[in-house]
Amino acid sequence: MTGKIEARLAELGVVLPDAPAPAANYVPFVQVGDLVFVSGQISQDANGLIKGRLGAELDAAAGAAAARRCGISLLAQARAACAGDLDRLVRVVKLTGFVNCTTDFSDQPKVINGCSDFLVEVLGDAGRHSRSAVGAPALPLGVAVEIEAIFQVK
Amino acid sequence: MTGKIEARLAELGVVLPDAPAPAANYVPFVQVGDLVFVSGQISQDANGLIKGRLGAELDAAAGAAAARRCGISLLAQARAACAGDLDRLVRVVKLTGFVNCTTDFSDQPKVINGCSDFLVEVLGDAGRHSRSAVGAPALPLGVAVEIEAIFQVK
Amino acid sequence: MTGKIEARLAELGVVLPDAPAPAANYVPFVQVGDLVFVSGQISQDANGLIKGRLGAELDAAAGAAAARRCGISLLAQARAACAGDLDRLVRVVKLTGFVNCTTDFSDQPKVINGCSDFLVEVLGDAGRHSRSAVGAPALPLGVAVEIEAIFQVK
Repeated sequence: MTGKIEARLAELGVVLPDAPAPAANYVPFVQVGDLVFVSGQISQDANGLIKGRLGAELDAAAGAAAARRCGISLLAQARAACAGDLDRLVRVVKLTGFVNCTTDFSDQPKVINGCSDFLVEVLGDAGRHSRSAVGAPALPLGVAVEIEAIFQVK
Repeated sequence: MTGKIEARLAELGVVLPDAPAPAANYVPFVQVGDLVFVSGQISQDANGLIKGRLGAELDAAAGAAAARRCGISLLAQARAACAGDLDRLVRVVKLTGFVNCTTDFSDQPKVINGCSDFLVEVLGDAGRHSRSAVGAPALPLGVAVEIEAIFQVK
Repeated sequence: MTGKIEARLAELGVVLPDAPAPAANYVPFVQVGDLVFVSGQISQDANGLIKGRLGAELDAAAGAAAARRCGISLLAQARAACAGDLDRLVRVVKLTGFVNCTTDFSDQPKVINGCSDFLVEVLGDAGRHSRSAVGAPALPLGVAVEIEAIFQVK
């Protein structure tokens, strides 16, 4: 709890949850060398799943808030991969963001920015990452956003 | 054919096909260091392509069976990457599963479990992987499922 | 400008643009070891964004032309990652191609071939890559194609 990143999280008032466990026969992350591949994290908060489609029930701002929650879950998984010490996190390497949306919705980047901005807010330059943002016609359990990540750790 | 994994496949009655060749100007897999990136494998069996959309022509159980076939193709590619010796396979690192589905289908995880469960059934703990499961409005040739993978080999 | 790959590009009459900058709080690529992860590049040319849906406003040939433009942008990013020297590019490792399409469009591979063929045309065997091609109901800014890549560099 004395780490720099933990201090920054406290400053921002962000409480990382326990790393969410996957619902099936797979694992939250796998490390190979210094790369950690984190499973897709679906949008959820203390009240449960954040469901809905962008372009229908949700607007881009609500989508960005959902994506920020995915970012919090991703960082919780990264912390678990670092055995609790986020200062071992070297870099966010890559995000792939899937946005549950209608066919006429074209603001996927604005939605995934909710996650990108959060990671840079907490990690500074180490949070800057390569990224893809795309639409999906449907996502697990009806969630609004799913984001997977690759992290570099030491 | 005396390998542990080959024995396990025989025990399960699974016959790996020859690694399916891609239909275009790309290759089934590329290895960099100990990582093998395998091209998306589409659902097919001895009778041909497994087509259809989840939420319409196919239910989750049929989708899981299709995903299992993708898993068999992925493992066939991994064997080719290991020059025939699956005991060189260290770990399944990551799966990304795309499910051809309607907009109201939300059981993508149950579908992709067909692949995840197969890999753990054959490989044990080495088969546990990070994963994303998402919907797609359409997939190549109308198939039900497409899954890509990253493997670690030695 | 005396490099082999630059000479090949000149021979093909291809002018790489300056590497397109991303529109948000992320970066065009991140390198870890000898792997370069490049952000999803959306279809655009000198006239602007190439928009539309396959199966509706665009046919597979138009889609392949759009995908070729994504390939040009990806190669421009790879050049930037190599500090301008494309001869440091060892291999195209992986492409993931997303095609904005209707639910009855099943020629995603023909579309993404526009990118695959371009990379092999320029790079020869080093351009051969693993690949996934999938449909998306919508893409950023309404573009027809988005493609991300992993390159190996030295």
